[in-house]
Amino acid sequence: MSRFWSPFVKGLVPYVPGEQPKLSKLTKLNTNENPYGPSPKVLEVIKAEANDALRLYPDPNSDVLKSAIADYHGVSVSQVFVGNGSDEVLAHIFHGLFQHGKPLLFPDITYSFYPVYCGLYQIPFEAIPLDEAFQIRIEEYRGLNGGIIFPNPNAPTGCFLALSEIERLLVVNNETVVVIDEAYVDFGGESAISLVNRFPNLLVTQTLSKSRSLAGLRVGFAIGHPDLIEALERIKNSFNSYPLDRLAQLGAAASFADQAYFEQTCAAVINEREAMAARLSALDFQVLPSAANFLFCRHRVRDAAELAAGLREDGVIVRHFKMPRIEQYLRITVGKPEESEILFSSLERILAET
Amino acid sequence: MSRFWSPFVKGLVPYVPGEQPKLSKLTKLNTNENPYGPSPKVLEVIKAEANDALRLYPDPNSDVLKSAIADYHGVSVSQVFVGNGSDEVLAHIFHGLFQHGKPLLFPDITYSFYPVYCGLYQIPFEAIPLDEAFQIRIEEYRGLNGGIIFPNPNAPTGCFLALSEIERLLVVNNETVVVIDEAYVDFGGESAISLVNRFPNLLVTQTLSKSRSLAGLRVGFAIGHPDLIEALERIKNSFNSYPLDRLAQLGAAASFADQAYFEQTCAAVINEREAMAARLSALDFQVLPSAANFLFCRHRVRDAAELAAGLREDGVIVRHFKMPRIEQYLRITVGKPEESEILFSSLERILAET
Repeated sequence: MSRFWSPFVKGLVPYVPGEQPKLSKLTKLNTNENPYGPSPKVLEVIKAEANDALRLYPDPNSDVLKSAIADYHGVSVSQVFVGNGSDEVLAHIFHGLFQHGKPLLFPDITYSFYPVYCGLYQIPFEAIPLDEAFQIRIEEYRGLNGGIIFPNPNAPTGCFLALSEIERLLVVNNETVVVIDEAYVDFGGESAISLVNRFPNLLVTQTLSKSRSLAGLRVGFAIGHPDLIEALERIKNSFNSYPLDRLAQLGAAASFADQAYFEQTCAAVINEREAMAARLSALDFQVLPSAANFLFCRHRVRDAAELAAGLREDGVIVRHFKMPRIEQYLRITVGKPEESEILFSSLERILAET
Repeated sequence: MSRFWSPFVKGLVPYVPGEQPKLSKLTKLNTNENPYGPSPKVLEVIKAEANDALRLYPDPNSDVLKSAIADYHGVSVSQVFVGNGSDEVLAHIFHGLFQHGKPLLFPDITYSFYPVYCGLYQIPFEAIPLDEAFQIRIEEYRGLNGGIIFPNPNAPTGCFLALSEIERLLVVNNETVVVIDEAYVDFGGESAISLVNRFPNLLVTQTLSKSRSLAGLRVGFAIGHPDLIEALERIKNSFNSYPLDRLAQLGAAASFADQAYFEQTCAAVINEREAMAARLSALDFQVLPSAANFLFCRHRVRDAAELAAGLREDGVIVRHFKMPRIEQYLRITVGKPEESEILFSSLERILAET
């Protein structure tokens, strides 16, 4: 703490991202990265763009990328906002659309960056408990609010809420912005983008970090009514004119042009997820139904922290949240089949110990 | 305007960056980009890193890049903060270090993003007039303040303030943060980084966009006391865990390893600047002394807006600010000698017209 800090900085509790270990021999199943690399066409574009033109500023409006996203999702360019990862997009949303002096509503078990953004922008919030089965109950979101946000599928549970439920919410809650954070939607969910033309208060965010294997490139976006997008553009243009570098803009745009690769890698992840879920169940884990690229599970007998520590001894990293209600759960990213072999041989070793 | 916006968004007046034309045949002397490309070693590193590892998140702490910057500038890693261009670094500085309810002080003629950040974070400010010769007079910065910021060299004037003057300011103003924004310092200025170990309220920002020819990669940094850096880290970690992508972190680090290329290209820009200044003077322009990679000048007779329009007819773009005190000035980026030929043949054509 220093007298030079703006006063609110003292009270900030920053987000803690999953560990990014610098050793390469680990089996890294802790931050929901895609086990398959990006489309080879994306890599080709980036290599070609690594040239003298890097001396020039990028397009501040990311027009090529916005067009690629708009075409892909069947919306107009004025309905698309892009940012430096969906985390930056979310930050601008909290700043530009959620400061109404009334509590923002989100689930008690969800992406743990939401309360951090509330701290950064001094937004009151209310965490609404998931039900006993860790499902979002839409009826609980009817109170006075300055906005509503949740991931779908939810994180870290992986549970997907049917679009009909979201529609039910939007019909009732039409005075504040509802944000559906679809970081994981391509692994088996259904996007609420199909609803944006009917509900001017609906904003949908997505990222290229998961299903498009570009966590290292930092690109996310939001789709919604042009009025909502304009608020985000105003914030962005008052914060940083050029949040997306030249390589990220063109690399990301190229990803939307390779549909075959996208479908093939998403299908491989989904197949492996189902295989992992079956094997975990056979090892006496209770596994939540997942529409994401991870599984959220608890062993019926063994302590989660001990399991995580045991896995780490074998070089396998999974995510364990030391938080109320979920301290006995592990979140395990879906990897390649060969990573599953390492995971399960380690788990079998640990579970065989008494 | 929409009822969904956070109330302050309505009053935001975003920054307007210089035009980034999509035609390639223009002579682009409007946004102070380096006419020479980045070091070939930077391009090699980026190409090598465009691989499957892009599926993984980048290092959230940018350790390799911070070490490269710390080594280069002879400070410790805990004195270095990095961000997505120095614009993002500045945004976090305004948010984390300037919200004290007292006016931030900066020159009336300066980087026009400063009042925009004040709007974004609701910071009162006072613009202190430059003197008649467009110089910063340190005595004017002695009033009650919540912080002080100015570029050195200043933009868009290019004028450099001696470090002894900055030291004089720091001795008197030791209760609030003083930020020296050194975007252009490598073209003939002297960095205040040499003062950070003596003044715990001094923060110096720099960018890789100008002297290191990486405007397209988006990397900037700040150097100062670890207490100031900690405030920025807290903001950053409450905003976006991974603001710098994998390619930007490693490409930027590689730039600091190629000192020969850096010195050679900076020298070429400085040489061309002096040649341009002499030619402009010969054409009856009044040219401010510049320590940057641009010249700020006014013709003794002809109207600046008409000159800018005439240049544009010939495909030459320069920056003309329609603002009080400087509406008769043009800011012209230093290009390659062959770009100067195009600039001066156009100017000579225009000036020959009656």
